[in-house]
Amino acid sequence: MHFFSDNTTPVCPPVMAAIAAADHADHGYDGDAWSARLDGAFSTLFETEVRALWVATGTAANCIALATLCPPYGGILTHEEAHIVADECGAPGFFTHGATLMTLPGDGAKLTPDMVAGRLATIRGDVHQSPARAISITQATEYGRVYTPAEVAALGDLARAHGLGFHMDGARFANAIAHLGCAPADITWRAGVDALSFGCVKNGGMVGEALLFFGPQADARATEAKRWRKRSGHLFSKGRYLAAQILAMIEDDLWLANARAANAAAQALAQSVPTRLLHPVEANELFLRLSAREAAQLRAAGFDFYDWGEGAARLVTNWAQDAASVAPLAAALKALDP
Amino acid sequence: MHFFSDNTTPVCPPVMAAIAAADHADHGYDGDAWSARLDGAFSTLFETEVRALWVATGTAANCIALATLCPPYGGILTHEEAHIVADECGAPGFFTHGATLMTLPGDGAKLTPDMVAGRLATIRGDVHQSPARAISITQATEYGRVYTPAEVAALGDLARAHGLGFHMDGARFANAIAHLGCAPADITWRAGVDALSFGCVKNGGMVGEALLFFGPQADARATEAKRWRKRSGHLFSKGRYLAAQILAMIEDDLWLANARAANAAAQALAQSVPTRLLHPVEANELFLRLSAREAAQLRAAGFDFYDWGEGAARLVTNWAQDAASVAPLAAALKALDP
Amino acid sequence: MHFFSDNTTPVCPPVMAAIAAADHADHGYDGDAWSARLDGAFSTLFETEVRALWVATGTAANCIALATLCPPYGGILTHEEAHIVADECGAPGFFTHGATLMTLPGDGAKLTPDMVAGRLATIRGDVHQSPARAISITQATEYGRVYTPAEVAALGDLARAHGLGFHMDGARFANAIAHLGCAPADITWRAGVDALSFGCVKNGGMVGEALLFFGPQADARATEAKRWRKRSGHLFSKGRYLAAQILAMIEDDLWLANARAANAAAQALAQSVPTRLLHPVEANELFLRLSAREAAQLRAAGFDFYDWGEGAARLVTNWAQDAASVAPLAAALKALDP
Amino acid sequence: MHFFSDNTTPVCPPVMAAIAAADHADHGYDGDAWSARLDGAFSTLFETEVRALWVATGTAANCIALATLCPPYGGILTHEEAHIVADECGAPGFFTHGATLMTLPGDGAKLTPDMVAGRLATIRGDVHQSPARAISITQATEYGRVYTPAEVAALGDLARAHGLGFHMDGARFANAIAHLGCAPADITWRAGVDALSFGCVKNGGMVGEALLFFGPQADARATEAKRWRKRSGHLFSKGRYLAAQILAMIEDDLWLANARAANAAAQALAQSVPTRLLHPVEANELFLRLSAREAAQLRAAGFDFYDWGEGAARLVTNWAQDAASVAPLAAALKALDP
Repeated sequence: MHFFSDNTTPVCPPVMAAIAAADHADHGYDGDAWSARLDGAFSTLFETEVRALWVATGTAANCIALATLCPPYGGILTHEEAHIVADECGAPGFFTHGATLMTLPGDGAKLTPDMVAGRLATIRGDVHQSPARAISITQATEYGRVYTPAEVAALGDLARAHGLGFHMDGARFANAIAHLGCAPADITWRAGVDALSFGCVKNGGMVGEALLFFGPQADARATEAKRWRKRSGHLFSKGRYLAAQILAMIEDDLWLANARAANAAAQALAQSVPTRLLHPVEANELFLRLSAREAAQLRAAGFDFYDWGEGAARLVTNWAQDAASVAPLAAALKALDP
Repeated sequence: MHFFSDNTTPVCPPVMAAIAAADHADHGYDGDAWSARLDGAFSTLFETEVRALWVATGTAANCIALATLCPPYGGILTHEEAHIVADECGAPGFFTHGATLMTLPGDGAKLTPDMVAGRLATIRGDVHQSPARAISITQATEYGRVYTPAEVAALGDLARAHGLGFHMDGARFANAIAHLGCAPADITWRAGVDALSFGCVKNGGMVGEALLFFGPQADARATEAKRWRKRSGHLFSKGRYLAAQILAMIEDDLWLANARAANAAAQALAQSVPTRLLHPVEANELFLRLSAREAAQLRAAGFDFYDWGEGAARLVTNWAQDAASVAPLAAALKALDP
Repeated sequence: MHFFSDNTTPVCPPVMAAIAAADHADHGYDGDAWSARLDGAFSTLFETEVRALWVATGTAANCIALATLCPPYGGILTHEEAHIVADECGAPGFFTHGATLMTLPGDGAKLTPDMVAGRLATIRGDVHQSPARAISITQATEYGRVYTPAEVAALGDLARAHGLGFHMDGARFANAIAHLGCAPADITWRAGVDALSFGCVKNGGMVGEALLFFGPQADARATEAKRWRKRSGHLFSKGRYLAAQILAMIEDDLWLANARAANAAAQALAQSVPTRLLHPVEANELFLRLSAREAAQLRAAGFDFYDWGEGAARLVTNWAQDAASVAPLAAALKALDP
Repeated sequence: MHFFSDNTTPVCPPVMAAIAAADHADHGYDGDAWSARLDGAFSTLFETEVRALWVATGTAANCIALATLCPPYGGILTHEEAHIVADECGAPGFFTHGATLMTLPGDGAKLTPDMVAGRLATIRGDVHQSPARAISITQATEYGRVYTPAEVAALGDLARAHGLGFHMDGARFANAIAHLGCAPADITWRAGVDALSFGCVKNGGMVGEALLFFGPQADARATEAKRWRKRSGHLFSKGRYLAAQILAMIEDDLWLANARAANAAAQALAQSVPTRLLHPVEANELFLRLSAREAAQLRAAGFDFYDWGEGAARLVTNWAQDAASVAPLAAALKALDP
């Protein structure tokens, strides 16, 4: 049983059905009927006017968003363990033409307003230093932590006060909403977020993530983002197959149902080893203390996952699981601490 | 009946079946079993050691290839109507960090060795001028013309003599091979080509094109290309779905069967209006003299296509057609010249 | 006697004196008293509010200007023999992060409104093609031709009508004004020019060219240009030595006196061989028919210059010459056609 | 009396004399007699084959060096307070096309081999993370600290072991050598350094810094650097005036004499307030505890300098000073702690 990543799961059946349903002739690129429905579908979901683009990957969504929010000479305040910092091989530098990632520490890969404000205070206004122009946070974070609406709003206030764009990497946005039980609007535009990478693939899609823009500049930014999408080779010839997947994901709350399943699986595992958790489990990732011997024992029993440095492991649950299906691992984990 | 572009066609059934067959859990990115078979499958097809990567689009394949062949200060010799010049919104400038497209005229969007050699002769060797570092041709060309093996080899000789990388944009490579009846090797590495954008989507795929490297530097270039692929947001989370499509396309000569069907449809149309052709029809594109009135008449009869400037039209056939299925349009065209 | 280029001349004495006069302690970068006077001095000269920056070279001035006028996905309409196209090793691509140079032919390296309008008409508005965003002309051109105020204004009208920025490469701006006898304003902001590279070094300076911005966006563009200047390594530690040179050049009309001398020398040469001229002589460059034998003969007599392809030569006069001082060459030229 | 920065000083007389001596006609760019002597002069000074280029500023020297050592997808290990990180407005990102600055803490802005090795150990070898490709240190550092030859060599060993390029920002290289009393070779190529930004302007020059390459790849890197120099607008039209300054600086050990004077002045000040020093004084910079009241008192007495955060100040001495000339400030400082 795989707990490597939610990338390893197959495509969930309604998405596969949507692909089959879209398998007709239509205009190329984003000129088709499915792509035309994206803005509307996301506007409904987020209770405001939204501009939505499909792109190939979360990296593309993140970096195109950042390119619209930050000039090449600007800086992006973000956590030092953010995906854009640690796992995109410098893609933000490529898309922004060399903007600076201004990295900050913080528990659970979460930024705090204090830290952001503190860093802003150190930047001189002269031409020798890159001015901060954007904040980027990950929701849920790289350690499976979830920002509350109030926490996001506090960063949003700071962004507005300093004229910064505000981006949210939502590769696991669905898991965050499933945890919070709030409206998607509450942790995005209502909290000051300008651009959201709305993850689909980890949550049951095949290919295609959505990049959303909110607020008064949404239209201008989306127009520019379409240029970046083309220039970076992300304007698919048959975009309808991506649009159809994304629509299937959001139109019947499939995205939430899938995320709830994954979160429930994670909770079941967490409850079996509460004293080993390195971070509170709020989404679908667990970080555990686990000795090499224990890890080997679990693997021998058929459970696969990544080590997370020495004496620790990361386990990721997914949409195809739930509390029942991960019971064997929960039992095996429990058995480690008799 | 659509003749806008081969982008408008649905996915061909064997590719759809391959997607379904790949719908199992596996490692993320390109760590899966399908991606692992790409090098081997293309090596067999091209009768030499090949390195193969999937990417989202032809633009990405072209531009990642160019980024491995040309430094930012270098120049790429290409036709002034090449896709990389006219239809990628400057993507080559983005991926190569500002390399110069050195554009040349030429009938049917084909480069000739004479023109290339003539241009090379005008470049001074000093630091003030960008040195040419690569040649890029399109096979079949933007006007549906096909380079013969000898024509490619003549450009390949020139490339080798001047130390230039040689790239082929093969968005319609299959149509070219279907026309020539030669081995894929004959118009690629045997003719000096270093990198090939091997098109799948126009020819029946859903998402995913292949980028191939040949020759002694194939391995080093593919290694670097994997960095560009990641940095440009093209390392899909679930790459197996792309790999499976590409494998389905090449493993039973589906690519050739599809291209032959499209070419046959184009030939049937061409034979119905031989005196109106603006370019010889060698692949699956037709460029016709057509007055506005005639165009309107055809559209009224249910045939859709793009105007190509004043008094001309472009029609593209596809894998889902053949001579029989386009007979109604052939008849309608013939009726224009009674 | 050198006629290679106006780059070969020494520094003119008033500039050298200004350097000596500036040789005191002052604040670094552009925080000094000399740099602070640039805006005012150029505002006086151009009879409008001007923002002025010093940079190292004409290439830097041109490319920083273009970076403020054109986004990475945009295009710059310019002559195919413009310095930015042919002699800057792709620097515009570097500074603009890959914008496209949309090159046009034209007699004497001059753009005409018809050609520009014709090219604009071919650009589709979709995302696949780079939109034109700027025009760049050279005054005097690479062939020593001078645009009249009416000619510049016609291009300026076109720029305004299409929302394009308008840049003038004025490496030999002084020679153009000396020829036209008009106000600097007449061929710049009054004719729609937004940014001017104001050349000093060829005209008697040592190091440092001025980049000027006009019009309602001058302030915003200059502010952004200062970021590019820093990022490209052009914010000199002791900027006062550049500012002092530029001020010396413009404050007593030294720039015009120098250019008049160079132009007069060119006219004297032109009049000696009127039938050999490949282009009308309007500034300080001559392009002559000249056989290899004739060229050798002149060189043997001590006159140095560059060949300009087969059977032609380029001669450049400079501030340190005048009609009298080039009389020996005029005589030698005349003697070729007895 | 200014202690803001060594940028504020005038040009030292021998450099001014060298400029005057170079004021003759010669070939443009770097085709002149002075530029031609740079390689030889630096080869003599460094006791090995050196390739040397002049550029406008230290930022340009640093960033062109880094562009030759690190690909866009690579990372550069450096101190978090290094000039390239904190004071170049992201210029390294511009010149390297988005390479990642991998910043490390460390006393006195010095890197230690342990820290570098520790950071290297955290980088996975996969395509998701930028590989380290270069180390950059500043000698003397941003806090006026000097690396010993052994310290540099330890970093050089690490660089070699990991296949990293090794760059030294020597804006105050002269002050470091004046402090160490060793041969320039001892802290550069003999210690594994591949590229050195050799500072001249702070040490008495007017415009122009030197960028040096050492070792077996020196020639190839310098050739590539010349392309970057041109593309970034740093190929001055009259390069001879820069070359002459640099030659004047090194040919009679003027650089060392100037640095010794500045260092002596700094020592004199340091000895007047030994208990207030925040860092050992090894070059020409002092960092002092100083209350706002004390700072005001010194300024009222005619001494100017920058605050360095709360309760501290930075003072920089220069070539035009020595122990005697700064005696008034030394006395004023001493008087603060009666």
